[in-house]
Amino acid sequence: MDNILLMLPGPTTVAPRVLKAISDSIVNHRSAIFGEIFTETTKLMSEVFQTKNQSYLLTGSGTASMEAAIANVLNPKDKILNVVGGKFGQRFMQIANAMGGNTQELAIKWGDAVSPEQVKEVLDKDEDIKAITVVHNETSTGVTAPIEEIGKVMKNYDALYIVDAISSVGGDRVEVDKYGIDICITGSQKCLAAPPGMAAITLTDDAWKVIDKVDSKAYYLDMKKYRKTGAGTPPETPYTPSVSMIYGLAEALKIIKEEGLENRVIRHEKAAKTVKNAVKSLNLELFPKEEISSSTVTAVKMPEGVTDSDFRGTMRNKYKVELAGGQDHLKGNIFRIGHMGNISYKELAITFSAMEMTLKGLGLDIEMGASLAAVNESYL
Amino acid sequence: MDNILLMLPGPTTVAPRVLKAISDSIVNHRSAIFGEIFTETTKLMSEVFQTKNQSYLLTGSGTASMEAAIANVLNPKDKILNVVGGKFGQRFMQIANAMGGNTQELAIKWGDAVSPEQVKEVLDKDEDIKAITVVHNETSTGVTAPIEEIGKVMKNYDALYIVDAISSVGGDRVEVDKYGIDICITGSQKCLAAPPGMAAITLTDDAWKVIDKVDSKAYYLDMKKYRKTGAGTPPETPYTPSVSMIYGLAEALKIIKEEGLENRVIRHEKAAKTVKNAVKSLNLELFPKEEISSSTVTAVKMPEGVTDSDFRGTMRNKYKVELAGGQDHLKGNIFRIGHMGNISYKELAITFSAMEMTLKGLGLDIEMGASLAAVNESYL
Repeated sequence: MDNILLMLPGPTTVAPRVLKAISDSIVNHRSAIFGEIFTETTKLMSEVFQTKNQSYLLTGSGTASMEAAIANVLNPKDKILNVVGGKFGQRFMQIANAMGGNTQELAIKWGDAVSPEQVKEVLDKDEDIKAITVVHNETSTGVTAPIEEIGKVMKNYDALYIVDAISSVGGDRVEVDKYGIDICITGSQKCLAAPPGMAAITLTDDAWKVIDKVDSKAYYLDMKKYRKTGAGTPPETPYTPSVSMIYGLAEALKIIKEEGLENRVIRHEKAAKTVKNAVKSLNLELFPKEEISSSTVTAVKMPEGVTDSDFRGTMRNKYKVELAGGQDHLKGNIFRIGHMGNISYKELAITFSAMEMTLKGLGLDIEMGASLAAVNESYL
Repeated sequence: MDNILLMLPGPTTVAPRVLKAISDSIVNHRSAIFGEIFTETTKLMSEVFQTKNQSYLLTGSGTASMEAAIANVLNPKDKILNVVGGKFGQRFMQIANAMGGNTQELAIKWGDAVSPEQVKEVLDKDEDIKAITVVHNETSTGVTAPIEEIGKVMKNYDALYIVDAISSVGGDRVEVDKYGIDICITGSQKCLAAPPGMAAITLTDDAWKVIDKVDSKAYYLDMKKYRKTGAGTPPETPYTPSVSMIYGLAEALKIIKEEGLENRVIRHEKAAKTVKNAVKSLNLELFPKEEISSSTVTAVKMPEGVTDSDFRGTMRNKYKVELAGGQDHLKGNIFRIGHMGNISYKELAITFSAMEMTLKGLGLDIEMGASLAAVNESYL
């Protein structure tokens, strides 16, 4: 495979010991030995979610877990409040619509963050709202939503609090129990730094009470089936899981435990702060306001006169560093630097080295070394 | 991991070169390099399906592909005929029920095979039937359905012909275009001998015409989204796929191409014939009639006086060979020997060596070497 440094909001570069783990021989997913691996993995997952509740592993993408979070709690015509400030907020609403839900959009300008007051205002006006969806880390805009503060608001309402923490769990603070999150989901290939293809979900008793009353159209993603088999001996999944990807997820979660979750969050904050300083040192402009800017992905306005294909194409093809572009109406207007997973000063030094050469090569007036100095100063 | 020979109807033992392939570094699933791998994999998949149509890869289990096959073609209350002669036929019907379909069961005694005439009879009586589901290789009973002959019947009706070939594609004859199958699905961990966690689906234009008129509740498994992105440049999946598992599937499909699909089918037939001869040489009784017995898994009646846990437990724990038990009402009454994927005389010699010692150890009057002689005679 080619030797590209992935600075994406997922997938992220996976540690060699994780790649080694996934290449282990396949065991029967209905055997005691797999049951042990599976139990260990779900326990480690709950630790990272910071919940006392059970975690469930889904073989599928983060989107599969988004669907699991909604399809199991929504009967047709049930009201659901979707906070939409980017592509993944939109996706939650699209899923709720596909399930026949009565979706209520709380529209936030892309690049802004929702406030707890905005949520409170809607819930005060409409007591029929059964659930609310919030994207913690909106990778499409690089904005973090205040999920802890929204959680405080939610404690006064019956509506279920559903949080997409796909690109934040393991990189930013997501304390599921403390924040009062009823359903929290994440994906393997973001801050957990495992390969793509697995998702995880955790649910409170309140969420299960709702689920038990819903006649879900989900089958592959029917959480009732997961709950049933998860309690078995050996614990198992209702359908054949990706055994190798569970090996990989287990190994990635062990790395997190070794590092310590709080250390890891601090490391992500440091990387985010460094990226912002380095970006500004090149006179580039952040897309969201700095105080709501994500700890795991930084969105930057594309410099005037530079095209996305020239910029990211050169970064990738000439300098072997892959950044993400903008999505939907932000396509060509922003680029995004993912700094999630196993990111240290090394990857940032490479990234900004490449970025300085790329921008200089495209004719911008770049002070060579400025962003590298910013990286060093931020890390020292 | 432990050194167990998997003689299961999936997962099967995976070749070292496939395990090596999945441990390659992760690339961006939205990059040209992944597009190339992805395109190659779907082309190889279509070759194995023996179809000129596009194949789509789903990150999920075979059950996910069963749901994709049904959820996309069924509006609530649409009539669907489910041939049910085992656990997976049942599952198709459960999925159709979950989708709100008006399911019509064609019940076949577990261990028997459906006949084309039975299908014809139902379709003649009810022209509202929109689709029919048939499980080609019912792993729960070890029975193969006559999908080619049913295909000939289906040519006279408008109903879509949906075939679960999860445990037969790459091991038994599944000529999708020739048999007139509208929707065919398979899984990675059966005869393809890749790790579990991926499924594939192929659809005819007739199937797409139906899909275009259905307001599907599927989101993660919405085939319209797969069709759209599959045609892009680079071709890609709508949601993040399991990149590593696609590396593995690609490698497994290359192995199939190198062996030759027809050679591989003949090899499976030889293994099946050998297993039957060896089983009979030990005076054990096949569960289904021999002429409808599967090429990829053999179901055998549990010998009188032997418990499943003694038999399979000893096979696994003492002799390191893992067989499958019976499911549902067949639990304890049958055991199943999977002989799919990379199976040669070697694995069968080990299996029957273990089986002779196990049964002798459990007090049965076994002529030592009888089944090993049968293996050798069948292979010579």
